[in-house]
Amino acid sequence: MRAGVIGASGYSGQELVALLLRHPEAELGFVGSRQYAGQSLVSVFSRFGSYPGAEALEFVAPEPERLSSQADIVFMALPHGTASEYARSFLNQGKRIIDLSADHRLDDPELYREYYGREHPHPDLLAKGVYGLPEINREKIRTAELVAGPGCYPTSIILPCWPLLRHGLIQPTAIIADSLSSPSGAGRKLDPALLFVECNESLRPYGVTRHRHLPEIEQELAKIAGQPLRIQFTPHLAPVNRGILTTIYTAPRKKCDTEPESEALKRAVRNAYDEAFRDEPFVRVLEEPNLPDTANVAHTNGLEIAWRLDQRTGRLIVMSAEDNLGKGAGGQAIQCLNVMAGFSETAGLI
Amino acid sequence: MRAGVIGASGYSGQELVALLLRHPEAELGFVGSRQYAGQSLVSVFSRFGSYPGAEALEFVAPEPERLSSQADIVFMALPHGTASEYARSFLNQGKRIIDLSADHRLDDPELYREYYGREHPHPDLLAKGVYGLPEINREKIRTAELVAGPGCYPTSIILPCWPLLRHGLIQPTAIIADSLSSPSGAGRKLDPALLFVECNESLRPYGVTRHRHLPEIEQELAKIAGQPLRIQFTPHLAPVNRGILTTIYTAPRKKCDTEPESEALKRAVRNAYDEAFRDEPFVRVLEEPNLPDTANVAHTNGLEIAWRLDQRTGRLIVMSAEDNLGKGAGGQAIQCLNVMAGFSETAGLI
Amino acid sequence: MRAGVIGASGYSGQELVALLLRHPEAELGFVGSRQYAGQSLVSVFSRFGSYPGAEALEFVAPEPERLSSQADIVFMALPHGTASEYARSFLNQGKRIIDLSADHRLDDPELYREYYGREHPHPDLLAKGVYGLPEINREKIRTAELVAGPGCYPTSIILPCWPLLRHGLIQPTAIIADSLSSPSGAGRKLDPALLFVECNESLRPYGVTRHRHLPEIEQELAKIAGQPLRIQFTPHLAPVNRGILTTIYTAPRKKCDTEPESEALKRAVRNAYDEAFRDEPFVRVLEEPNLPDTANVAHTNGLEIAWRLDQRTGRLIVMSAEDNLGKGAGGQAIQCLNVMAGFSETAGLI
Amino acid sequence: MRAGVIGASGYSGQELVALLLRHPEAELGFVGSRQYAGQSLVSVFSRFGSYPGAEALEFVAPEPERLSSQADIVFMALPHGTASEYARSFLNQGKRIIDLSADHRLDDPELYREYYGREHPHPDLLAKGVYGLPEINREKIRTAELVAGPGCYPTSIILPCWPLLRHGLIQPTAIIADSLSSPSGAGRKLDPALLFVECNESLRPYGVTRHRHLPEIEQELAKIAGQPLRIQFTPHLAPVNRGILTTIYTAPRKKCDTEPESEALKRAVRNAYDEAFRDEPFVRVLEEPNLPDTANVAHTNGLEIAWRLDQRTGRLIVMSAEDNLGKGAGGQAIQCLNVMAGFSETAGLI
Repeated sequence: MRAGVIGASGYSGQELVALLLRHPEAELGFVGSRQYAGQSLVSVFSRFGSYPGAEALEFVAPEPERLSSQADIVFMALPHGTASEYARSFLNQGKRIIDLSADHRLDDPELYREYYGREHPHPDLLAKGVYGLPEINREKIRTAELVAGPGCYPTSIILPCWPLLRHGLIQPTAIIADSLSSPSGAGRKLDPALLFVECNESLRPYGVTRHRHLPEIEQELAKIAGQPLRIQFTPHLAPVNRGILTTIYTAPRKKCDTEPESEALKRAVRNAYDEAFRDEPFVRVLEEPNLPDTANVAHTNGLEIAWRLDQRTGRLIVMSAEDNLGKGAGGQAIQCLNVMAGFSETAGLI
Repeated sequence: MRAGVIGASGYSGQELVALLLRHPEAELGFVGSRQYAGQSLVSVFSRFGSYPGAEALEFVAPEPERLSSQADIVFMALPHGTASEYARSFLNQGKRIIDLSADHRLDDPELYREYYGREHPHPDLLAKGVYGLPEINREKIRTAELVAGPGCYPTSIILPCWPLLRHGLIQPTAIIADSLSSPSGAGRKLDPALLFVECNESLRPYGVTRHRHLPEIEQELAKIAGQPLRIQFTPHLAPVNRGILTTIYTAPRKKCDTEPESEALKRAVRNAYDEAFRDEPFVRVLEEPNLPDTANVAHTNGLEIAWRLDQRTGRLIVMSAEDNLGKGAGGQAIQCLNVMAGFSETAGLI
Repeated sequence: MRAGVIGASGYSGQELVALLLRHPEAELGFVGSRQYAGQSLVSVFSRFGSYPGAEALEFVAPEPERLSSQADIVFMALPHGTASEYARSFLNQGKRIIDLSADHRLDDPELYREYYGREHPHPDLLAKGVYGLPEINREKIRTAELVAGPGCYPTSIILPCWPLLRHGLIQPTAIIADSLSSPSGAGRKLDPALLFVECNESLRPYGVTRHRHLPEIEQELAKIAGQPLRIQFTPHLAPVNRGILTTIYTAPRKKCDTEPESEALKRAVRNAYDEAFRDEPFVRVLEEPNLPDTANVAHTNGLEIAWRLDQRTGRLIVMSAEDNLGKGAGGQAIQCLNVMAGFSETAGLI
Repeated sequence: MRAGVIGASGYSGQELVALLLRHPEAELGFVGSRQYAGQSLVSVFSRFGSYPGAEALEFVAPEPERLSSQADIVFMALPHGTASEYARSFLNQGKRIIDLSADHRLDDPELYREYYGREHPHPDLLAKGVYGLPEINREKIRTAELVAGPGCYPTSIILPCWPLLRHGLIQPTAIIADSLSSPSGAGRKLDPALLFVECNESLRPYGVTRHRHLPEIEQELAKIAGQPLRIQFTPHLAPVNRGILTTIYTAPRKKCDTEPESEALKRAVRNAYDEAFRDEPFVRVLEEPNLPDTANVAHTNGLEIAWRLDQRTGRLIVMSAEDNLGKGAGGQAIQCLNVMAGFSETAGLI
């Protein structure tokens, strides 16, 4: 099985290259980059120098016709908009696609237009895209032609809410998700707001009330809850290279004013998480008193979750930590690859 | 006017020393530190070398009897528990006190016992302590014998909520405050969790549901709202040297399902903030599209506020940024000093 | 006295604006920025919101003819090349100039061509420019029409070497300077190498053997030594917002193989530093065991120096720390302004 | 093959645990920690939660008698002094030792006393210890009973100097090594100077002229050069979690005043590096214009090297980057294990 990467010089692209070079089953067929085409991978990113097989690799121009013979599955690590064009071409040539952009995550082309400010170039592909969260959609991913890798924030919100929503333990309409992210989530983009001096020693919100990941989160949570819903989502930037820490405020569906009610709720929550993630290799529900820490998951495909029932306020608070380039992007995409190709799901990831 | 500092070697203590050395009206009477008594200020902290008057200063043991002749007002920058002992002694000798610890913030000795795990040593002082938020309590501070400097988190929450609560614009019982802080808020404490390697590249919650600042926040918000209330408060650590960024989720009291309702609410919010902070030198309510950033207030006594009404969810989101050692501790204490001593309120602070 | 700033939106420019807004004697006449012309200072950089007088300021296009009536002294905080053009125009209109670029530091237009890759646009100005190190050139600065603000690295190297070289204590031809700098020294430039993710968690050399500050360092050290010389200079980037730490390896002119010889050298070094900096408000020679730390000088115009004679190797090692935007750029420029305008040299700086 | 780790909770210890849990050939026999004995590995360090086999591990008290049956090779990740005691016990029970402390690096007990301030507890072991740099001592390591893992700084200096010294290309007596390190090199120690707030935004030298790694560096370089020598070594702290960047100033043995002389030297240097590291999996000599960057080697066992001949000064400058916990400690120790146990040298490391 050979995998190619289009957009290999961005942060998610580099993460894919690193994971594929060390993958025990998959082979890295090509590394595509318009910017670096013709240069060797190692001359541009010397850190790959000690990876097995990296010396021989050269960046190639992202030309689907020429490249399709060199890969069975193609990863798109591109900005939204461009990804769909390439996906179309590779699909036409019978390749399977794992797209890390936002281009194939939404079911509704109207929402795409609203949040991404343009018509979707290939609305038919929206229906084709399987949302790439293996813990929830494993079976669909197995046979998918086109997997839409979830956004980094959505992964950190949907997975912790999933067990609670599908068991009806929380009110679907009262979810508030407050997230902190590394600037690496914005990609390797020449924006003054992403310069070292502007991000270091800075904590700041952005995209308040209307971040682009919002419709995707609501869409997937609504599917789980079986009803439409709106959530509150506020992202913030914090000066770390890797990591998203999300704190989610939820309202239990049942009142728990008494001790026995609280205990019953806690048991139900514990069971829901246990059932959901007991056999999942990448999701860890922490025992008290441990709380998630992005430092624990940096450079891995892990997701840490902890929850607390606040008996004073009645709220159930859920926290998660992930590496935004790992479980939030490249790691999860490789996990999808493993599912699609029938490899062990942890191959190349632990 | 001479001011002394007890606990001058901690982070808040150093901040006070820096501000007092540059203060145009106050004189720094003594710098107290059990640990460094007998050493010169500059030999321990060479950064003070270029401050006017620093060369002559030597750390002294914190002995109220000996020191009280050397200051008219004494700052306590000590851990809770010990602060009250010193406050008692200095008060007995007719000195006025600005206490940066938590020892005199709560009205109720029961709450003190519950959250600080010990009996309050001088419960009579609890009644004496004036909560040191000049924007709200300016008149009481003016004549106070004992000012209880607010906690760093409480300042970042109470000031942004004050205009909304006193005008009845939000529901007092539905406030969620999510805060990110520099580890400097924990003080210069030898705790492995505060080592560079543990904090750098780490984003993590702590004190979930029961942080010690909680009763103080609720007490002050309840006074403003005129009713008891419970809030949700979650602090997090992020790797910056200075700063607290707080995002507050509130529910407007009036529904705003229609455009005119929303516009009416926005006008009311705008007016409430304008009235509250128009003439305040340290609080800035930002114009759209600006959002608070701790980088903007680091090393100052400023507090930035921005708010957004989310028409999709109906929530009013308020964000604030401060320097936790500035407006969150030392800067605010100097602002109180200025009020108490009849100086210009911005003296030594801009 | 009114001062204007051309290039006010870069890092050095912002530093100048901050210092001028708080300056007790000078008034900020205009803030020039091609990029932000027409926008208010505070809307672009909200951190200035609490600075006295900032609210009224609006960025203006950098047009010398229109602006020259609004300032007596003009600061240039521009890239090299463009600075000289503006300097020419303002000089023609009788204004005095403090140029923070490299355009007027070198005496020799050949060296300018060699290191900056272009003909100098106004070689006559090279002769006019006074190198703006007040500790060394105070008298010339007092009456200068055109002050060439030193580079950030050169300041950290020339000042510590000055007392040693002018007393003939070290060999002029054997100096090695190894420097670490904040990426802020590179300015607010859209270069992928300056993105947060590329600088954070990275330590790396750059410009090895031929950094642009090299000829300027050699020129000024040669003047002090009274002979031509070549030095070794290696800059590195480290992830801090402010600061340069320089470690300089020198060879004493006299052998000191015996204890008495060593002691004699140490006395001579101590005296040389004492004589040079005893009365300087911004330079601190630290007592053992203290060593320079950029944290001690961040956000100040201070320069810390320490030295050690290594009796094992015979080398004299000198270390310095400065804020690259303070004593290394904006602070030093204001110090020059104070000298030129006859203000107290510390006005607005401590 | 089973390996045990004594001191598993420090930074080097944790690195060893991480590498051993993922090692394809070695099994982790025990994790020793006085502090955490009785607690499960994952409850203390939740990041190990997703490592294969970690769930079952519990910290054990470091008792050689009880533990020796559970490992064939034992790693010591302990402070100097204590390491030798444990080494003695495990050796007595026939175990092989890889000691990451400084206890068995020096040949001369006098030097140990001088630099470590105490008598060596088992001077006979000094003779036994093989210096654990596989690139240089591979054959001795293969059969060693006791391997002394090199210090983090020494690795970054000795490897780049080795090819130059053994071919006589540089003067052995004129080496200056200037290093920047992560505070993680100091270990998980409760020292105020290692707190986040003290290290972040700080660049500072320490241990100037007499760092403890100095005798070890000189000892090993002297062996290569075949003559006694003294070097200059200055370490600095910089705020990164992982990494050492070393810049080494050397003087070529032959003058190279003419272009042909320079070219000849460059060829000789190129050949020396090529011969030394061509077949080494972990050492990369970078092609121009690339320079080492700790970001490239963080979390790996790689060492990057680049060199430049400065024709202006005649000096040969060599730079290296490593992860101080990787090639500078834990990674290199695993590389030694691989050599000792006859595994592929890259097993578990790429």
